[in-house]
Amino acid sequence: MNLIAVGTVAFDSIETPFARREKVIGGAATYITLSASHFVKSSGLISVVGDDFPQEFLDTMTSRGIDQEGLQIKKGEKSFFWSGKYHYDLNSRDTLVTDLNVLADFNPIVPESYTECDFLMLGNLAPAVQMRVIEQLPVRPKLVVLDTMNFWMNVALEDLMKVIAKIDVLTINDEEARQLANEYSLVKAARKILKMGPKYLIIKKGEHGALLFDAHNVFFAPALPLEEVVDPTGAGDTFAGGFIGYLAQSQNISFENMKRAVIIGSAMASFTCEKFGPDRLLELTRDEINERVEQFVQLTDFEIYVED
Amino acid sequence: MNLIAVGTVAFDSIETPFARREKVIGGAATYITLSASHFVKSSGLISVVGDDFPQEFLDTMTSRGIDQEGLQIKKGEKSFFWSGKYHYDLNSRDTLVTDLNVLADFNPIVPESYTECDFLMLGNLAPAVQMRVIEQLPVRPKLVVLDTMNFWMNVALEDLMKVIAKIDVLTINDEEARQLANEYSLVKAARKILKMGPKYLIIKKGEHGALLFDAHNVFFAPALPLEEVVDPTGAGDTFAGGFIGYLAQSQNISFENMKRAVIIGSAMASFTCEKFGPDRLLELTRDEINERVEQFVQLTDFEIYVED
Repeated sequence: MNLIAVGTVAFDSIETPFARREKVIGGAATYITLSASHFVKSSGLISVVGDDFPQEFLDTMTSRGIDQEGLQIKKGEKSFFWSGKYHYDLNSRDTLVTDLNVLADFNPIVPESYTECDFLMLGNLAPAVQMRVIEQLPVRPKLVVLDTMNFWMNVALEDLMKVIAKIDVLTINDEEARQLANEYSLVKAARKILKMGPKYLIIKKGEHGALLFDAHNVFFAPALPLEEVVDPTGAGDTFAGGFIGYLAQSQNISFENMKRAVIIGSAMASFTCEKFGPDRLLELTRDEINERVEQFVQLTDFEIYVED
Repeated sequence: MNLIAVGTVAFDSIETPFARREKVIGGAATYITLSASHFVKSSGLISVVGDDFPQEFLDTMTSRGIDQEGLQIKKGEKSFFWSGKYHYDLNSRDTLVTDLNVLADFNPIVPESYTECDFLMLGNLAPAVQMRVIEQLPVRPKLVVLDTMNFWMNVALEDLMKVIAKIDVLTINDEEARQLANEYSLVKAARKILKMGPKYLIIKKGEHGALLFDAHNVFFAPALPLEEVVDPTGAGDTFAGGFIGYLAQSQNISFENMKRAVIIGSAMASFTCEKFGPDRLLELTRDEINERVEQFVQLTDFEIYVED
């Protein structure tokens, strides 16, 4: 399997200042695999749901090449449920409910058929669970990308540091980068974090774009200024899915290609914001993606000749 | 005179979480003209100071081609004084003291020698004062750029709308754009503001970069991720000075060239943040500017080929 994604497959109830939706399909791995499915023909999903999760949606995922041998379906149990409320700026939100349900004792099992994996995306989960997936792979993947959040820095920092030491690319937001490094300057924070293990760091700044760092370079991708943001839930996971999906498709992990992958991820994330849940990712065409990427090119393209 | 700048020449006392400086040289027109002086050989300054303002600094400005025929020096009066305290993020600040002094009854007088002006920069001042400068010019400049702030939206909105209707480029920050248009989405806000008169709108987002809009295009310039921000005072004015200085030098007001000017302005602003007051602008070399602009190119440059 070229690409494997680990993370939640879940239900979300979402409230924005403008609308409200109950129990839409959500979860990090849902957004990651659907976003990546626009770039790779097949991927493997490692996750867990209860038997309340609609088979119809799983069939839709199957039709997009998302293999579910690694998906555990727990009889008589309920899927992970998250409920949140966005503030007026849609950049910040409060969590109202977190029902772990099947996630409480999730023990990820990597199927035999997934063990030769080139690209591994560890979506936001308890660091110990992310680690258990790495440990089951007999051959280290070409590239391991890990997403996490401040919650794990607060409650499981030791586990988090262990798994961060084993990965290639870390994706976190600006506040989390500051917290993890205990540095306000993102440049200084990036330098510290790159010494913790990862060779690359992506700092996600929501509507303010994303920064990609390695030890010697920095690249900035803007977010597309949108007319309207309907629901940003899943935007970060969609970004990650587009990023790793593009890398897995092109089989090129140079810094130059990661820059392209960051633009692709940003473009995919902008679509997710346009509707509630992952709906936009399901209907998206290749032409729409190309057109959106071209908008990013136009947005940042300039030619300048400095004079002596 | 190719370029004229209107605005304050003043003293600032600045407190950051890391340091404090009393009565450093400040003022919008100070930063604007010093920044522009790296691109144009001469400019005209319209402002007012008391006789407490150091002649030595005025001589330094003269040596950089900043003509002071339009600068009124009021005997026995004190220069404008502002004092502010920055929060830890250095993106927000509280004003502690505003002593208008000579600014209280400032009546700008455009000298005869300034009346044929191609590029006019109206720095942040009462909108009625900005208007009085426009009214004294017998021939409309090629390009009028206006900077303002939320304070004037709160206390002099009617005057502000009148002057905004007469200019070409408006520069404000993101919160001010939202306030002026009463729209949260910056895309929608920009569309509304462009109907108020200006052909171009620059939305400054501080450490998150700047957006340039016209009726059909949008361009995004990032801010350079800095190791350390010492003092952001004057960064917005330095941006404006670099922007209009570059346009005045190149005599080209196409959207393509304005994109370059936004990058130049952003590069100049990044220098101002490195030291208290305008010191950095005084010591800056052409090589340093070229190198910084090249960093912006590197920061945003990518090549992508979309596939069908």
